[in-house]
Amino acid sequence: MFINIIDKHLSLKPTEVADAEPLFDLVAANRKHLKPWMPWVDATATVADERKFIEMMLTKQAKGEVFIATIVVDGEVAGMIDVHNISDARHNGEIGYWLAQDYVGKGVMTKALERVEEIAFTELDLHKLNLCADVANQRSRAVAERRQYHLDATLPENILINGQYKDEVVYSITVDEWSKRRDD
Amino acid sequence: MFINIIDKHLSLKPTEVADAEPLFDLVAANRKHLKPWMPWVDATATVADERKFIEMMLTKQAKGEVFIATIVVDGEVAGMIDVHNISDARHNGEIGYWLAQDYVGKGVMTKALERVEEIAFTELDLHKLNLCADVANQRSRAVAERRQYHLDATLPENILINGQYKDEVVYSITVDEWSKRRDD
Amino acid sequence: MFINIIDKHLSLKPTEVADAEPLFDLVAANRKHLKPWMPWVDATATVADERKFIEMMLTKQAKGEVFIATIVVDGEVAGMIDVHNISDARHNGEIGYWLAQDYVGKGVMTKALERVEEIAFTELDLHKLNLCADVANQRSRAVAERRQYHLDATLPENILINGQYKDEVVYSITVDEWSKRRDD
Amino acid sequence: MFINIIDKHLSLKPTEVADAEPLFDLVAANRKHLKPWMPWVDATATVADERKFIEMMLTKQAKGEVFIATIVVDGEVAGMIDVHNISDARHNGEIGYWLAQDYVGKGVMTKALERVEEIAFTELDLHKLNLCADVANQRSRAVAERRQYHLDATLPENILINGQYKDEVVYSITVDEWSKRRDD
Amino acid sequence: MFINIIDKHLSLKPTEVADAEPLFDLVAANRKHLKPWMPWVDATATVADERKFIEMMLTKQAKGEVFIATIVVDGEVAGMIDVHNISDARHNGEIGYWLAQDYVGKGVMTKALERVEEIAFTELDLHKLNLCADVANQRSRAVAERRQYHLDATLPENILINGQYKDEVVYSITVDEWSKRRDD
Amino acid sequence: MFINIIDKHLSLKPTEVADAEPLFDLVAANRKHLKPWMPWVDATATVADERKFIEMMLTKQAKGEVFIATIVVDGEVAGMIDVHNISDARHNGEIGYWLAQDYVGKGVMTKALERVEEIAFTELDLHKLNLCADVANQRSRAVAERRQYHLDATLPENILINGQYKDEVVYSITVDEWSKRRDD
Repeated sequence: MFINIIDKHLSLKPTEVADAEPLFDLVAANRKHLKPWMPWVDATATVADERKFIEMMLTKQAKGEVFIATIVVDGEVAGMIDVHNISDARHNGEIGYWLAQDYVGKGVMTKALERVEEIAFTELDLHKLNLCADVANQRSRAVAERRQYHLDATLPENILINGQYKDEVVYSITVDEWSKRRDD
Repeated sequence: MFINIIDKHLSLKPTEVADAEPLFDLVAANRKHLKPWMPWVDATATVADERKFIEMMLTKQAKGEVFIATIVVDGEVAGMIDVHNISDARHNGEIGYWLAQDYVGKGVMTKALERVEEIAFTELDLHKLNLCADVANQRSRAVAERRQYHLDATLPENILINGQYKDEVVYSITVDEWSKRRDD
Repeated sequence: MFINIIDKHLSLKPTEVADAEPLFDLVAANRKHLKPWMPWVDATATVADERKFIEMMLTKQAKGEVFIATIVVDGEVAGMIDVHNISDARHNGEIGYWLAQDYVGKGVMTKALERVEEIAFTELDLHKLNLCADVANQRSRAVAERRQYHLDATLPENILINGQYKDEVVYSITVDEWSKRRDD
Repeated sequence: MFINIIDKHLSLKPTEVADAEPLFDLVAANRKHLKPWMPWVDATATVADERKFIEMMLTKQAKGEVFIATIVVDGEVAGMIDVHNISDARHNGEIGYWLAQDYVGKGVMTKALERVEEIAFTELDLHKLNLCADVANQRSRAVAERRQYHLDATLPENILINGQYKDEVVYSITVDEWSKRRDD
Repeated sequence: MFINIIDKHLSLKPTEVADAEPLFDLVAANRKHLKPWMPWVDATATVADERKFIEMMLTKQAKGEVFIATIVVDGEVAGMIDVHNISDARHNGEIGYWLAQDYVGKGVMTKALERVEEIAFTELDLHKLNLCADVANQRSRAVAERRQYHLDATLPENILINGQYKDEVVYSITVDEWSKRRDD
Repeated sequence: MFINIIDKHLSLKPTEVADAEPLFDLVAANRKHLKPWMPWVDATATVADERKFIEMMLTKQAKGEVFIATIVVDGEVAGMIDVHNISDARHNGEIGYWLAQDYVGKGVMTKALERVEEIAFTELDLHKLNLCADVANQRSRAVAERRQYHLDATLPENILINGQYKDEVVYSITVDEWSKRRDD
């Protein structure tokens, strides 16, 4: 239906309720890969869970509280990317994403993030984007670093995943830093 | 952000709350042109009214009850097109649209409608699209006829606009008719 | 409690939650007779379903969105009649009804409809009543024709019932036509 | 529309949103007469207040929480009568009513109450009806006494009206007492 | 967390969702003792029921509609006490309480009630407190009498408990009576 | 009503709707003192604003999403302290507080925070408390440091206050660190 073309393989599409099935299938096929970092994996037990989640996110998006998109690689649903906790008071938001195993290590997330920054800073009018991850989530950290986010903090024992309290790193980039980088 | 490119001048984008301002400005500049056919023109008195309308439509869209898009010509917001009254029971929906005066008579609406049919029949899985208009709304009727919808009915005194009961024509096309036409 | 007496056998009463049991028993005893034309028959599986439906309709009625009544023949609940899709914008509404098999062919529905027209045109201030039915639903069509509604349209494949797309006929009568007929 | 005929002058009709205007006009013309006993008189400042009240009561009625009716004398709206605080747990409810000044002293309320008892005990399946009033409200007390309710209590300082704490009398009748009286 | 100390054994604490477990355990261990007087005993089948009840009461308390506290004896949860049906119009409310069997006959409820009267009359600004009980609930009646409430009424067949209609006694005390008693 | 006594001058009480007036008076008298650090000062224009805020917080508290208390010094309302953003997933929450000017510099906040830590770690079962502040808010920072929170981060341009993007410091303490400190 609608598309945001990043390159000849990669695009973003607005997440719709109709994506519930392919997204659920992807989660179901990637539980082992996603579970170390995503606390919602077990709770997404059926297509209905995914549909409920999408409907909830789209209703929030209707009020400007989140931005959510489905990542599409070669026409196939590959994962999701969002800006959540959009704060009207602080003019910032937090990046979230996940990608199925088959698509990692190909630069997909980095390029998707690049496009979402453009949307966040030019269309959502945010001042700053935060990107948080488990300190051990090297993949996620590499994406942030590749996009030249600065590491602002390591918040100790700030996440609880699979029964363990893990440290959480916080990266960020402001609109001015992003702007400057573009001009360079 | 997201786009559905129809040709080098014309595209559709998913309607967002951020479109409230340009859409309101367009309505405000086109009251005289829109009022004979659109009962909502006077009630759209401020940007806030437009924003409330968009938020309401996006919340319905989150539940699959409508599909709504903004029409963009040469990068400028030009009007809106939607499928509403999407009936889960009947697998059909009703087309609605409006275009600012500057853009009429250029084939814009016909091409936008063509694209929305594709979305309705291949992505929304509808069986049939209805298109209703005031019997005197020649422009709207011409769009339906150009897209080879058949005139199913003239429902007498079925619309109330500007204090007058007007006859309403009903055009429609089914997925099979649409399919067939495509193959031809 | 309250009654609208049509003749010595037939009356209408305002539908109440307490009607859920007799109405459900009637639906349950008439599934075969009702199923060809009513898409809700299977979904009315328990008294609770009927109660939920009545509560939903009464809440809509509290807001002027529908009018609903139970048809009573010789003191027994015999079916239901309503005006739904009451459009504040168009000043019209759509007739709906069903009658248990034991009561058909006795002029019950025609007289009930006559009374509801009076309510619709003198108390609900509607301008027009539409009555739609499956093209093959001879019984329903005969009621409309007996009440001198004119056939405005046959909308192709507009209903989906029991897995088939069926044509839908649309009859209507305006307040002026109805008025005139009364004076005659 | 619907009616419960008590005698050739008096009937009850189900309260509808359309009664808001005549009921408001009646309240407005009877403020002085109603204010000593009714705490809601001042708050019913516009037709919209009355409409909102009726919509709220009809929504409660849809859930079986109240029963409400408009009193009609010689075709004119004369007041209201209701059963409120219908307790599912206790199988009882509380009578409430008001009548415009022009209609008092004619036995109207006594007959309306008699009809409502019948509805309460045979259709709402209540076990008992309570009727409470300001100890000084002779008119209201006379209605209860005429209907042979027994005085169960004088609850001291239980009502606050026009800035004063007043004693409240509680009358009641059970279904068995009512039944017995009927047989006599 | 927060406490209202009555004496060295007895205190009140604001009821919190975290009390659901100890309160449920107490109800479960006291079903036989509570069931003759409390209609909610069977419906409190799981901790979740208790939690739902507390959340509902705290939400009402947020709006000033009830006051609710947990009774604590020697550090252990022993029962609950509340003021419910707080009427903004009448400036009164109704006392409710229950105590586990192990704690009855020790003056606990009388002292807890004394403290709640203080709260009701000096902080909730009530004019009057009502205390209702089954006529046969000697224990409850003794608490009211010990606190010098006056018996205002015996309302016949006003409660339905365990399938029987029981008479309900109504005791009350006004702020002035309470004040006066304190000064004595 | 309920109290948590910290020392002979200082206590915490559960915030209630009745605190709206004294709290509003305090905010109104302290706008200049509070505005540099609190973004809500201007929006708290009337007692009704304060009441609405308290009702909203108490409703959240009923669901375990926040903990909120009023700080009382020598029997007078002096400010507020809360734990917000209580995350069920992360087992952590964020401290928030404000104190009227007359009470600062007396160790009030430090002691109040000490008590709230106890509540958070022993009753709310949190794993960690975060305390965030404007980097220039020396007073707030001193409270955290006095309580031996460690400085985890300075998040650049993370707050927007009075039109300026300010850096935000994040302090925290875990239940184990807190426990250990107690034992020492």
